[in-house]
Amino acid sequence: MKCQLCKKNAILKSPRLCEDHFIEYFERKIGKFIEKYHLKNKKLLIAISGGKDSVVVGYVLSKLQEKYNLSLEYFFIRLGIPFFTEKSEEIVKKVTQEIGYPLTIYDLKEEEGFVIPDIKYKPCSYCGMTRRYILNKYAYENKFDYVVMGHNLDDEVFFAFNNLFGKNISQIQRTGPLTETNFEKKLVGRVKPLYYLTEEEILLYAKLKNLPYIGCACPNSMESTQKKFKTKTEFTRDQKLNFIYSILEIKKFLPEETVEIKFCEKCGFPTTSNICKFCRTKEKILTGTLGKKMK
Amino acid sequence: MKCQLCKKNAILKSPRLCEDHFIEYFERKIGKFIEKYHLKNKKLLIAISGGKDSVVVGYVLSKLQEKYNLSLEYFFIRLGIPFFTEKSEEIVKKVTQEIGYPLTIYDLKEEEGFVIPDIKYKPCSYCGMTRRYILNKYAYENKFDYVVMGHNLDDEVFFAFNNLFGKNISQIQRTGPLTETNFEKKLVGRVKPLYYLTEEEILLYAKLKNLPYIGCACPNSMESTQKKFKTKTEFTRDQKLNFIYSILEIKKFLPEETVEIKFCEKCGFPTTSNICKFCRTKEKILTGTLGKKMK
Repeated sequence: MKCQLCKKNAILKSPRLCEDHFIEYFERKIGKFIEKYHLKNKKLLIAISGGKDSVVVGYVLSKLQEKYNLSLEYFFIRLGIPFFTEKSEEIVKKVTQEIGYPLTIYDLKEEEGFVIPDIKYKPCSYCGMTRRYILNKYAYENKFDYVVMGHNLDDEVFFAFNNLFGKNISQIQRTGPLTETNFEKKLVGRVKPLYYLTEEEILLYAKLKNLPYIGCACPNSMESTQKKFKTKTEFTRDQKLNFIYSILEIKKFLPEETVEIKFCEKCGFPTTSNICKFCRTKEKILTGTLGKKMK
Repeated sequence: MKCQLCKKNAILKSPRLCEDHFIEYFERKIGKFIEKYHLKNKKLLIAISGGKDSVVVGYVLSKLQEKYNLSLEYFFIRLGIPFFTEKSEEIVKKVTQEIGYPLTIYDLKEEEGFVIPDIKYKPCSYCGMTRRYILNKYAYENKFDYVVMGHNLDDEVFFAFNNLFGKNISQIQRTGPLTETNFEKKLVGRVKPLYYLTEEEILLYAKLKNLPYIGCACPNSMESTQKKFKTKTEFTRDQKLNFIYSILEIKKFLPEETVEIKFCEKCGFPTTSNICKFCRTKEKILTGTLGKKMK
Protein backbone atom coordinates (compact mmCIF):
# COMPACT_ATOMS: atom_id res chain seq x y z
CA MET A 1 0.00 0.00 0.00
CA LYS A 2 1.59 3.22 -1.23
CA CYS A 3 1.06 6.76 0.07
CA GLN A 4 -1.47 8.64 -2.08
CA LEU A 5 0.94 11.58 -2.33
CA CYS A 6 4.35 9.91 -2.87
CA LYS A 7 5.96 6.54 -3.51
CA LYS A 8 6.66 5.67 0.13
CA ASN A 9 4.79 3.01 2.07
CA ALA A 10 1.54 4.18 3.63
CA ILE A 11 1.27 3.78 7.40
CA LEU A 12 -2.50 4.25 7.49
CA LYS A 13 -5.35 3.07 5.28
CA SER A 14 -7.65 6.07 5.58
CA PRO A 15 -6.19 8.54 4.71
CA ARG A 16 -3.60 6.46 2.80
CA LEU A 17 -0.44 8.37 3.71
CA CYS A 18 3.22 7.74 4.53
CA GLU A 19 4.70 8.88 7.83
CA ASP A 20 5.82 12.33 6.65
CA HIS A 21 2.62 13.11 4.77
CA PHE A 22 0.52 11.85 7.67
CA ILE A 23 2.25 14.21 10.13
CA GLU A 24 1.81 17.06 7.68
CA TYR A 25 -1.88 16.21 7.09
CA PHE A 26 -2.57 15.85 10.82
CA GLU A 27 -1.07 19.20 11.78
CA ARG A 28 -2.59 20.94 8.77
CA LYS A 29 -6.02 19.66 9.79
CA ILE A 30 -5.63 21.30 13.20
CA GLY A 31 -4.36 24.46 11.50
CA LYS A 32 -7.46 24.47 9.31
CA PHE A 33 -9.58 24.11 12.43
CA ILE A 34 -7.93 27.22 13.88
CA GLU A 35 -8.70 29.13 10.69
CA LYS A 36 -12.25 27.85 10.27
CA TYR A 37 -13.23 28.69 13.84
CA HIS A 38 -11.30 31.99 13.96
CA LEU A 39 -8.92 31.04 16.76
CA LYS A 40 -6.06 33.16 15.38
CA ASN A 41 -4.67 35.63 17.97
CA LYS A 42 -6.79 34.03 20.68
CA LYS A 43 -5.89 33.24 24.28
CA LEU A 44 -6.49 29.54 24.84
CA LEU A 45 -6.58 27.49 28.02
CA ILE A 46 -5.65 23.90 27.21
CA ALA A 47 -7.32 21.41 29.54
CA ILE A 48 -4.65 18.72 29.77
CA SER A 49 -5.36 15.44 31.54
CA GLY A 50 -2.38 13.38 30.42
CA GLY A 51 -4.51 11.23 28.12
CA LYS A 52 -3.53 10.86 24.46
CA ASP A 53 -6.06 13.42 23.18
CA SER A 54 -5.15 16.35 25.41
CA VAL A 55 -1.43 15.60 25.10
CA VAL A 56 -1.67 15.55 21.30
CA VAL A 57 -3.82 18.66 20.99
CA GLY A 58 -1.55 20.53 23.42
CA TYR A 59 1.55 19.46 21.53
CA VAL A 60 0.24 20.41 18.08
CA LEU A 61 -1.10 23.76 19.28
CA SER A 62 2.35 24.58 20.70
CA LYS A 63 3.79 23.86 17.24
CA LEU A 64 1.22 26.13 15.60
CA GLN A 65 1.46 28.84 18.28
CA GLU A 66 3.73 31.15 16.33
CA LYS A 67 2.00 30.75 12.97
CA TYR A 68 -1.40 31.66 14.41
CA ASN A 69 -0.18 33.95 17.21
CA LEU A 70 -1.88 31.89 19.89
CA SER A 71 -1.53 32.65 23.57
CA LEU A 72 -1.41 29.26 25.29
CA GLU A 73 -1.60 28.04 28.86
CA TYR A 74 -1.91 24.45 30.07
CA PHE A 75 -4.25 23.59 32.92
CA PHE A 76 -4.26 20.38 34.94
CA ILE A 77 -6.72 19.54 37.70
CA ARG A 78 -5.28 17.38 40.48
CA LEU A 79 -8.35 15.24 41.11
CA GLY A 80 -6.85 13.11 43.85
CA ILE A 81 -7.56 9.70 42.32
CA PRO A 82 -4.85 7.39 43.77
CA PHE A 83 -2.16 6.34 41.28
CA PHE A 84 -4.11 7.72 38.30
CA THR A 85 -3.75 11.40 39.28
CA GLU A 86 -0.05 11.05 40.20
CA LYS A 87 0.75 9.25 36.98
CA SER A 88 -1.22 11.78 34.88
CA GLU A 89 0.48 14.73 36.56
CA GLU A 90 3.92 13.25 35.90
CA ILE A 91 3.13 12.97 32.19
CA VAL A 92 1.57 16.43 31.98
CA LYS A 93 4.64 18.00 33.62
CA LYS A 94 6.96 16.15 31.29
CA VAL A 95 5.03 17.21 28.17
CA THR A 96 4.67 20.86 29.11
CA GLN A 97 8.34 21.13 30.17
CA GLU A 98 9.42 19.67 26.86
CA ILE A 99 7.38 22.13 24.84
CA GLY A 100 8.21 24.94 27.28
CA TYR A 101 4.74 26.27 28.04
CA PRO A 102 3.27 27.39 31.36
CA LEU A 103 1.30 24.79 33.30
CA THR A 104 -1.17 25.68 36.02
CA ILE A 105 -2.03 22.93 38.46
CA TYR A 106 -5.34 23.26 40.25
CA ASP A 107 -5.40 21.17 43.41
CA LEU A 108 -8.99 20.15 44.03
CA LYS A 109 -8.42 19.29 47.71
CA GLU A 110 -6.68 22.60 48.47
CA GLU A 111 -9.06 24.78 46.48
CA GLU A 112 -12.40 23.09 47.05
CA GLY A 113 -11.81 20.87 50.06
CA PHE A 114 -12.58 17.50 48.44
CA VAL A 115 -11.13 14.90 46.05
CA ILE A 116 -12.97 12.74 43.50
CA PRO A 117 -12.81 9.57 45.65
CA ASP A 118 -14.94 11.47 48.20
CA ILE A 119 -17.80 11.26 45.64
CA LYS A 120 -19.48 7.98 46.43
CA TYR A 121 -22.50 8.48 44.17
CA LYS A 122 -22.26 8.72 40.33
CA PRO A 123 -18.57 9.75 40.48
CA CYS A 124 -18.09 10.12 36.69
CA SER A 125 -21.04 12.42 36.32
CA TYR A 126 -20.06 14.66 39.26
CA CYS A 127 -16.37 14.59 38.30
CA GLY A 128 -17.26 15.81 34.81
CA MET A 129 -19.45 18.57 36.20
CA THR A 130 -16.70 19.62 38.64
CA ARG A 131 -14.04 19.78 35.91
CA ARG A 132 -16.32 21.81 33.61
CA TYR A 133 -17.07 24.23 36.43
CA ILE A 134 -13.42 24.73 37.39
CA LEU A 135 -12.25 25.12 33.79
CA ASN A 136 -14.90 27.73 33.12
CA LYS A 137 -14.20 29.63 36.35
CA TYR A 138 -10.44 29.72 35.83
CA ALA A 139 -10.76 30.62 32.13
CA TYR A 140 -13.24 33.40 32.90
CA GLU A 141 -11.23 34.87 35.77
CA ASN A 142 -8.09 34.86 33.66
CA LYS A 143 -9.77 36.21 30.54
CA PHE A 144 -9.23 33.27 28.20
CA ASP A 145 -11.14 33.33 24.91
CA TYR A 146 -11.74 29.57 24.89
CA VAL A 147 -11.02 26.37 26.75
CA VAL A 148 -9.43 23.74 24.48
CA MET A 149 -10.77 20.21 24.90
CA GLY A 150 -9.28 17.00 23.53
CA HIS A 151 -12.53 15.42 22.25
CA ASN A 152 -12.01 13.49 19.03
CA LEU A 153 -14.26 12.31 16.20
CA ASP A 154 -14.98 8.96 17.86
CA ASP A 155 -16.01 10.71 21.10
CA GLU A 156 -18.34 13.01 19.19
CA VAL A 157 -19.91 10.26 17.07
CA PHE A 158 -20.70 8.22 20.13
CA PHE A 159 -21.88 11.22 22.08
CA ALA A 160 -24.33 11.98 19.26
CA PHE A 161 -25.37 8.34 19.09
CA ASN A 162 -26.07 8.21 22.78
CA ASN A 163 -28.15 11.36 22.54
CA LEU A 164 -30.14 9.93 19.64
CA PHE A 165 -30.65 6.71 21.59
CA GLY A 166 -31.73 8.75 24.59
CA LYS A 167 -34.16 11.07 22.74
CA ASN A 168 -31.92 13.92 23.88
CA ILE A 169 -32.18 16.37 21.00
CA SER A 170 -31.42 19.47 23.06
CA GLN A 171 -28.04 17.99 24.00
CA ILE A 172 -27.19 17.77 20.28
CA GLN A 173 -27.89 21.49 19.98
CA ARG A 174 -25.69 22.29 22.97
CA THR A 175 -22.48 20.69 21.68
CA GLY A 176 -20.20 20.85 18.63
CA PRO A 177 -16.65 21.80 17.57
CA LEU A 178 -17.05 25.24 19.16
CA THR A 179 -19.39 26.72 21.72
CA GLU A 180 -19.53 30.48 21.94
CA THR A 181 -17.94 32.52 24.71
CA ASN A 182 -20.21 34.97 26.49
CA PHE A 183 -18.31 37.07 29.04
CA GLU A 184 -21.47 38.79 30.21
CA LYS A 185 -22.89 35.43 31.17
CA LYS A 186 -19.48 34.44 32.62
CA LEU A 187 -19.36 31.55 30.15
CA VAL A 188 -16.12 30.70 28.34
CA GLY A 189 -16.72 28.64 25.19
CA ARG A 190 -15.04 25.34 24.40
CA VAL A 191 -13.19 24.39 21.21
CA LYS A 192 -12.30 20.89 20.07
CA PRO A 193 -9.46 20.98 17.52
CA LEU A 194 -9.45 17.15 17.25
CA TYR A 195 -13.17 17.15 16.34
CA TYR A 196 -12.55 15.88 12.79
CA LEU A 197 -9.74 13.42 13.65
CA THR A 198 -10.25 9.80 14.63
CA GLU A 199 -8.87 8.07 17.70
CA GLU A 200 -6.77 5.91 15.38
CA GLU A 201 -5.17 8.98 13.81
CA ILE A 202 -4.47 10.56 17.20
CA LEU A 203 -2.89 7.38 18.58
CA LEU A 204 -0.75 7.11 15.49
CA TYR A 205 0.40 10.74 15.75
CA ALA A 206 1.29 10.28 19.44
CA LYS A 207 3.28 7.17 18.58
CA LEU A 208 5.15 8.76 15.66
CA LYS A 209 6.03 11.82 17.75
CA ASN A 210 6.91 9.64 20.71
CA LEU A 211 4.61 11.62 22.97
CA PRO A 212 4.08 10.26 26.48
CA TYR A 213 0.49 9.79 27.61
CA ILE A 214 -1.34 7.86 30.27
CA GLY A 215 -2.33 4.54 28.74
CA CYS A 216 -4.74 3.39 31.43
CA ALA A 217 -8.26 4.75 31.76
CA CYS A 218 -9.49 6.36 34.95
CA PRO A 219 -10.52 3.44 37.22
CA ASN A 220 -13.98 4.99 37.64
CA SER A 221 -14.69 5.17 33.92
CA MET A 222 -14.68 1.45 33.23
CA GLU A 223 -18.42 1.22 33.77
CA SER A 224 -19.51 4.20 31.68
CA THR A 225 -22.09 3.82 28.92
CA GLN A 226 -19.99 5.44 26.24
CA LYS A 227 -17.17 2.96 26.71
CA LYS A 228 -19.55 0.00 26.58
CA PHE A 229 -21.07 1.23 23.37
CA LYS A 230 -17.71 1.89 21.74
CA THR A 231 -16.61 -1.70 22.00
CA LYS A 232 -19.77 -2.91 20.26
CA THR A 233 -19.79 -1.00 17.03
CA GLU A 234 -17.21 0.00 14.52
CA PHE A 235 -17.56 2.39 11.64
CA THR A 236 -15.13 3.59 9.01
CA ARG A 237 -13.52 7.03 9.15
CA ASP A 238 -15.69 8.21 6.24
CA GLN A 239 -18.85 7.02 7.94
CA LYS A 240 -17.88 8.81 11.15
CA LEU A 241 -17.05 12.04 9.32
CA ASN A 242 -20.26 11.96 7.29
CA PHE A 243 -22.26 11.19 10.39
CA ILE A 244 -20.84 14.17 12.26
CA TYR A 245 -21.35 16.43 9.22
CA SER A 246 -24.99 15.28 9.17
CA ILE A 247 -25.33 16.12 12.85
CA LEU A 248 -23.78 19.56 12.30
CA GLU A 249 -26.17 20.12 9.37
CA ILE A 250 -29.13 19.10 11.52
CA LYS A 251 -27.92 21.40 14.32
CA LYS A 252 -28.38 24.40 12.03
CA PHE A 253 -32.12 23.76 12.02
CA LEU A 254 -32.64 22.93 15.68
CA PRO A 255 -34.06 25.77 17.78
CA GLU A 256 -31.76 27.75 20.06
CA GLU A 257 -32.10 27.00 23.71
CA THR A 258 -33.86 29.66 25.70
CA VAL A 259 -32.93 29.17 29.34
CA GLU A 260 -32.70 32.10 31.65
CA ILE A 261 -29.19 32.39 33.08
CA LYS A 262 -28.90 33.63 36.65
CA PHE A 263 -25.78 33.93 38.80
CA CYS A 264 -25.20 31.60 41.73
CA GLU A 265 -25.81 33.28 45.10
CA LYS A 266 -22.75 31.56 46.53
CA CYS A 267 -20.07 31.68 43.82
CA GLY A 268 -21.46 34.14 41.30
CA PHE A 269 -21.11 31.79 38.34
CA PRO A 270 -23.91 31.02 35.87
CA THR A 271 -26.75 28.72 36.83
CA THR A 272 -30.43 28.19 36.05
CA SER A 273 -31.39 28.04 39.74
CA ASN A 274 -30.42 30.15 42.75
CA ILE A 275 -27.44 28.05 43.83
CA CYS A 276 -25.40 26.41 41.05
CA LYS A 277 -25.03 22.66 40.74
CA PHE A 278 -21.37 22.75 41.68
CA CYS A 279 -21.99 24.65 44.94
CA ARG A 280 -24.91 22.36 45.82
CA THR A 281 -22.87 19.24 45.05
CA LYS A 282 -19.79 20.50 46.89
CA GLU A 283 -21.81 21.06 50.03
CA LYS A 284 -23.28 17.58 49.80
CA ILE A 285 -19.84 16.03 49.28
CA LEU A 286 -18.40 17.92 52.25
CA THR A 287 -21.29 16.89 54.49
CA GLY A 288 -21.37 13.31 53.18
CA THR A 289 -24.97 13.58 51.94
CA LEU A 290 -24.51 13.22 48.17
CA GLY A 291 -26.96 10.68 46.72
CA LYS A 292 -28.70 10.30 50.10
CA LYS A 293 -32.34 11.15 50.55
CA MET A 294 -33.09 14.06 52.82
CA LYS A 295 -35.19 13.35 55.90
CA MET B 1 -39.61 -15.09 32.91
CA LYS B 2 -43.26 -14.21 33.53
CA CYS B 3 -45.55 -12.03 31.42
CA GLN B 4 -45.74 -8.50 32.79
CA LEU B 5 -49.53 -8.64 32.62
CA CYS B 6 -50.36 -12.14 33.87
CA LYS B 7 -48.79 -15.25 35.43
CA LYS B 8 -48.09 -17.08 32.17
CA ASN B 9 -44.63 -17.57 30.71
CA ALA B 10 -43.39 -14.67 28.60
CA ILE B 11 -42.45 -15.53 25.02
CA LEU B 12 -40.50 -12.30 24.44
CA LYS B 13 -38.13 -10.28 26.57
CA SER B 14 -39.03 -6.78 25.35
CA PRO B 15 -41.96 -6.31 25.78
CA ARG B 16 -42.15 -9.12 28.36
CA LEU B 17 -45.46 -10.72 27.37
CA CYS B 18 -47.09 -14.14 27.09
CA GLU B 19 -48.47 -15.37 23.78
CA ASP B 20 -52.01 -14.01 24.25
CA HIS B 21 -50.90 -10.63 25.55
CA PHE B 22 -48.29 -10.33 22.83
CA ILE B 23 -50.89 -10.87 20.07
CA GLU B 24 -53.16 -8.36 21.76
CA TYR B 25 -50.32 -5.81 22.14
CA PHE B 26 -49.15 -6.28 18.55
CA GLU B 27 -52.59 -5.74 17.01
CA ARG B 28 -53.39 -2.88 19.37
CA LYS B 29 -50.18 -1.15 18.32
CA ILE B 30 -51.30 -1.25 14.69
CA GLY B 31 -54.76 -0.07 15.74
CA LYS B 32 -53.15 2.87 17.52
CA PHE B 33 -51.19 3.66 14.38
CA ILE B 34 -54.47 3.83 12.44
CA GLU B 35 -55.89 6.23 15.02
CA LYS B 36 -52.77 8.37 15.34
CA TYR B 37 -52.40 8.86 11.60
CA HIS B 38 -56.16 9.21 10.93
CA LEU B 39 -56.53 6.17 8.68
CA LYS B 40 -60.10 5.44 9.83
CA ASN B 41 -62.56 5.19 6.88
CA LYS B 42 -59.69 5.34 4.41
CA LYS B 43 -59.20 3.39 1.19
CA LEU B 44 -55.84 1.61 1.44
CA LEU B 45 -53.80 -0.19 -1.17
CA ILE B 46 -51.63 -2.81 0.53
CA ALA B 47 -48.40 -3.45 -1.35
CA ILE B 48 -47.88 -7.15 -0.69
CA SER B 49 -44.66 -8.87 -1.73
CA GLY B 50 -45.00 -12.16 0.13
CA GLY B 51 -42.30 -11.21 2.64
CA LYS B 52 -43.03 -11.39 6.37
CA ASP B 53 -43.64 -7.64 6.77
CA SER B 54 -46.24 -7.15 4.04
CA VAL B 55 -47.96 -10.45 4.89
CA VAL B 56 -48.22 -9.46 8.56
CA VAL B 57 -49.39 -5.90 7.93
CA GLY B 58 -51.94 -7.15 5.38
CA TYR B 59 -53.22 -9.79 7.77
CA VAL B 60 -53.57 -7.44 10.76
CA LEU B 61 -55.26 -4.73 8.69
CA SER B 62 -57.82 -7.28 7.49
CA LYS B 63 -58.56 -8.10 11.14
CA LEU B 64 -58.97 -4.39 11.95
CA GLN B 65 -60.91 -3.62 8.77
CA GLU B 66 -64.33 -3.64 10.36
CA LYS B 67 -63.37 -1.77 13.53
CA TYR B 68 -61.85 1.11 11.58
CA ASN B 69 -64.06 0.87 8.47
CA LEU B 70 -61.09 0.43 6.17
CA SER B 71 -61.44 -0.23 2.46
CA LEU B 72 -58.66 -2.65 1.58
CA GLU B 73 -57.14 -3.98 -1.61
CA TYR B 74 -54.00 -6.06 -2.01
CA PHE B 75 -51.56 -5.35 -4.81
CA PHE B 76 -48.80 -7.62 -6.03
CA ILE B 77 -46.30 -6.78 -8.75
CA ARG B 78 -45.15 -9.77 -10.80
CA LEU B 79 -41.52 -8.72 -11.24
CA GLY B 80 -40.44 -11.74 -13.27
CA ILE B 81 -37.53 -12.81 -11.07
CA PRO B 82 -37.20 -16.58 -11.68
CA PHE B 83 -38.30 -18.77 -8.74
CA PHE B 84 -38.54 -15.78 -6.40
CA THR B 85 -41.55 -14.17 -8.12
CA GLU B 86 -43.42 -17.49 -8.57
CA LYS B 87 -42.87 -18.44 -4.95
CA SER B 88 -43.91 -14.97 -3.72
CA GLU B 89 -47.06 -14.97 -5.83
CA GLU B 90 -48.07 -18.38 -4.50
CA ILE B 91 -47.80 -17.10 -0.92
CA VAL B 92 -49.60 -13.85 -1.66
CA LYS B 93 -52.50 -15.71 -3.29
CA LYS B 94 -52.73 -18.10 -0.37
CA VAL B 95 -52.77 -15.30 2.20
CA THR B 96 -55.33 -13.11 0.42
CA GLN B 97 -57.60 -16.06 -0.29
CA GLU B 98 -57.51 -17.04 3.38
CA ILE B 99 -58.46 -13.58 4.56
CA GLY B 100 -60.90 -13.16 1.64
CA TYR B 101 -59.71 -9.83 0.24
CA PRO B 102 -59.31 -8.74 -3.40
CA LEU B 103 -55.83 -9.10 -4.88
CA THR B 104 -54.70 -7.24 -7.97
CA ILE B 105 -51.73 -8.69 -9.80
CA TYR B 106 -49.76 -6.28 -11.94
CA ASP B 107 -47.71 -8.13 -14.53
CA LEU B 108 -44.64 -6.03 -15.26
CA LYS B 109 -43.88 -7.78 -18.57
CA GLU B 110 -47.44 -7.41 -19.88
CA GLU B 111 -47.93 -3.86 -18.70
CA GLU B 112 -44.51 -2.32 -19.20
CA GLY B 113 -42.74 -4.72 -21.53
CA PHE B 114 -39.84 -5.70 -19.29
CA VAL B 115 -38.98 -7.81 -16.23
CA ILE B 116 -36.48 -7.05 -13.45
CA PRO B 117 -33.83 -9.48 -14.80
CA ASP B 118 -33.72 -7.26 -17.92
CA ILE B 119 -32.14 -4.59 -15.69
CA LYS B 120 -28.44 -5.31 -15.87
CA TYR B 121 -27.29 -2.16 -14.10
CA LYS B 122 -28.07 -1.35 -10.42
CA PRO B 123 -31.10 -3.71 -10.41
CA CYS B 124 -32.14 -3.05 -6.77
CA SER B 125 -32.20 0.68 -7.23
CA TYR B 126 -34.21 0.56 -10.49
CA CYS B 127 -36.52 -2.17 -9.18
CA GLY B 128 -37.34 0.00 -6.17
CA MET B 129 -38.00 3.01 -8.37
CA THR B 130 -40.20 0.90 -10.69
CA ARG B 131 -42.26 -0.48 -7.81
CA ARG B 132 -42.75 2.98 -6.28
CA TYR B 133 -43.86 4.35 -9.65
CA ILE B 134 -46.34 1.55 -10.31
CA LEU B 135 -47.79 1.64 -6.80
CA ASN B 136 -48.32 5.38 -7.02
CA LYS B 137 -49.84 5.20 -10.50
CA TYR B 138 -52.25 2.41 -9.64
CA ALA B 139 -53.20 4.00 -6.30
CA TYR B 140 -53.79 7.38 -7.95
CA GLU B 141 -55.81 6.02 -10.85
CA ASN B 142 -57.98 4.00 -8.47
CA LYS B 143 -58.39 6.80 -5.92
CA PHE B 144 -56.69 5.18 -2.93
CA ASP B 145 -55.99 7.44 0.04
CA TYR B 146 -52.69 5.75 0.85
CA VAL B 147 -50.37 2.94 -0.14
CA VAL B 148 -49.55 0.67 2.82
CA MET B 149 -45.91 -0.39 3.07
CA GLY B 150 -44.45 -3.12 5.29
CA HIS B 151 -41.40 -1.20 6.55
CA ASN B 152 -40.59 -2.00 10.17
CA LEU B 153 -38.64 -0.30 12.95
CA ASP B 154 -35.37 -2.02 12.02
CA ASP B 155 -35.73 -0.91 8.39
CA GLU B 156 -36.36 2.67 9.46
CA VAL B 157 -33.49 2.78 11.97
CA PHE B 158 -31.04 1.56 9.38
CA PHE B 159 -32.47 3.78 6.70
CA ALA B 160 -31.91 6.77 9.00
CA PHE B 161 -28.42 5.52 9.86
CA ASN B 162 -27.48 5.19 6.24
CA ASN B 163 -28.73 8.69 5.54
CA LEU B 164 -26.73 10.07 8.46
CA PHE B 165 -23.68 8.17 7.23
CA GLY B 166 -24.28 9.53 3.73
CA LYS B 167 -24.83 13.19 4.74
CA ASN B 168 -28.31 12.81 3.26
CA ILE B 169 -30.39 15.08 5.48
CA SER B 170 -33.06 15.81 2.86
CA GLN B 171 -33.85 12.09 2.66
CA ILE B 172 -34.61 12.14 6.39
CA GLN B 173 -37.14 14.89 5.79
CA ARG B 174 -38.76 12.96 2.93
CA THR B 175 -39.58 9.81 4.88
CA GLY B 176 -41.44 8.77 8.03
CA PRO B 177 -44.47 6.76 9.23
CA LEU B 178 -46.74 8.71 6.85
CA THR B 179 -46.16 10.85 3.80
CA GLU B 180 -49.02 13.06 2.70
CA THR B 181 -51.26 12.36 -0.29
CA ASN B 182 -51.59 15.17 -2.80
CA PHE B 183 -54.07 14.31 -5.55
CA GLU B 184 -53.37 17.55 -7.41
CA LYS B 185 -49.76 16.53 -7.73
CA LYS B 186 -50.86 12.94 -8.52
CA LEU B 187 -48.97 11.73 -5.47
CA VAL B 188 -50.48 9.10 -3.19
CA GLY B 189 -48.89 9.08 0.27
CA ARG B 190 -47.41 6.02 1.97
CA VAL B 191 -48.17 4.72 5.44
CA LYS B 192 -46.10 2.26 7.44
CA PRO B 193 -48.21 0.63 10.17
CA LEU B 194 -45.23 -1.51 11.32
CA TYR B 195 -43.10 1.60 11.83
CA TYR B 196 -42.89 1.15 15.61
CA LEU B 197 -42.56 -2.66 15.62
CA THR B 198 -39.28 -4.56 15.44
CA GLU B 199 -38.42 -7.31 13.01
CA GLU B 200 -38.25 -9.69 15.96
CA GLU B 201 -41.84 -8.85 16.94
CA ILE B 202 -43.09 -9.23 13.38
CA LEU B 203 -41.41 -12.60 12.92
CA LEU B 204 -42.86 -13.78 16.20
CA TYR B 205 -46.37 -12.64 15.24
CA ALA B 206 -46.11 -14.41 11.86
CA LYS B 207 -44.98 -17.59 13.60
CA LEU B 208 -47.70 -17.51 16.26
CA LYS B 209 -50.39 -16.90 13.62
CA ASN B 210 -48.87 -19.51 11.34
CA LEU B 211 -48.74 -17.04 8.47
CA PRO B 212 -46.95 -18.16 5.32
CA TYR B 213 -44.26 -15.86 3.98
CA ILE B 214 -41.32 -16.11 1.65
CA GLY B 215 -38.30 -16.93 3.78
CA CYS B 216 -35.60 -16.29 1.21
CA ALA B 217 -34.52 -12.81 0.20
CA CYS B 218 -34.61 -11.62 -3.38
CA PRO B 219 -31.45 -12.97 -5.03
CA ASN B 220 -30.50 -9.45 -6.11
CA SER B 221 -30.68 -7.98 -2.61
CA MET B 222 -27.86 -10.02 -1.11
CA GLU B 223 -25.36 -7.34 -1.97
CA SER B 224 -27.28 -4.30 -0.76
CA THR B 225 -25.74 -1.85 1.72
CA GLN B 226 -28.59 -1.98 4.17
CA LYS B 227 -28.29 -5.73 4.58
CA LYS B 228 -24.55 -5.52 5.10
CA PHE B 229 -24.99 -2.89 7.76
CA LYS B 230 -27.73 -4.82 9.55
CA THR B 231 -25.55 -7.79 10.22
CA LYS B 232 -22.89 -5.63 11.83
CA THR B 233 -24.75 -3.80 14.56
CA GLU B 234 -27.38 -4.70 17.04
CA PHE B 235 -29.36 -2.42 19.25
CA THR B 236 -32.09 -3.07 21.80
CA ARG B 237 -35.75 -2.38 21.05
CA ASP B 238 -35.71 0.64 23.37
CA GLN B 239 -32.64 2.08 21.65
CA LYS B 240 -34.28 1.63 18.24
CA LEU B 241 -37.52 3.26 19.38
CA ASN B 242 -35.72 6.18 21.03
CA PHE B 243 -33.55 6.63 17.98
CA ILE B 244 -36.54 6.82 15.66
CA TYR B 245 -38.36 9.20 18.05
CA SER B 246 -35.24 11.40 17.97
CA ILE B 247 -35.27 11.35 14.17
CA LEU B 248 -38.99 12.24 14.10
CA GLU B 249 -38.32 15.08 16.57
CA ILE B 250 -35.45 16.36 14.40
CA LYS B 251 -37.69 16.12 11.30
CA LYS B 252 -40.01 18.71 12.80
CA PHE B 253 -37.24 21.29 12.57
CA LEU B 254 -35.86 20.42 9.13
CA PRO B 255 -36.99 22.72 6.33
CA GLU B 256 -39.68 21.54 3.90
CA GLU B 257 -38.46 20.57 0.50
CA THR B 258 -39.25 23.05 -2.22
CA VAL B 259 -38.96 21.25 -5.53
CA GLU B 260 -41.13 22.23 -8.43
CA ILE B 261 -43.31 19.32 -9.52
CA LYS B 262 -44.02 19.00 -13.23
CA PHE B 263 -45.89 16.26 -15.06
CA CYS B 264 -44.06 13.81 -17.31
CA GLU B 265 -44.60 14.53 -21.02
CA LYS B 266 -44.91 10.79 -21.68
CA CYS B 267 -46.97 9.35 -18.81
CA GLY B 268 -48.37 12.42 -17.07
CA PHE B 269 -47.10 11.44 -13.62
CA PRO B 270 -45.09 13.77 -11.38
CA THR B 271 -41.43 14.46 -12.06
CA THR B 272 -38.90 17.24 -11.56
CA SER B 273 -37.73 17.08 -15.20
CA ASN B 274 -39.62 16.87 -18.50
CA ILE B 275 -39.65 13.09 -18.75
CA CYS B 276 -39.93 11.15 -15.47
CA LYS B 277 -37.25 8.78 -14.27
CA PHE B 278 -39.46 5.74 -14.83
CA CYS B 279 -40.16 6.59 -18.49
CA ARG B 280 -36.49 7.38 -19.12
CA THR B 281 -35.40 4.15 -17.44
CA LYS B 282 -38.03 2.05 -19.20
CA GLU B 283 -36.85 3.28 -22.58
CA LYS B 284 -33.25 2.49 -21.72
CA ILE B 285 -34.19 -1.00 -20.50
CA LEU B 286 -36.18 -1.70 -23.67
CA THR B 287 -33.35 -0.51 -25.90
CA GLY B 288 -30.66 -2.21 -23.82
CA THR B 289 -28.84 1.05 -23.04
CA LEU B 290 -29.30 1.28 -19.25
CA GLY B 291 -25.97 2.04 -17.54
CA LYS B 292 -24.22 2.48 -20.89
CA LYS B 293 -22.62 5.74 -21.87
CA MET B 294 -24.16 7.56 -24.81
CA LYS B 295 -21.97 8.10 -27.88
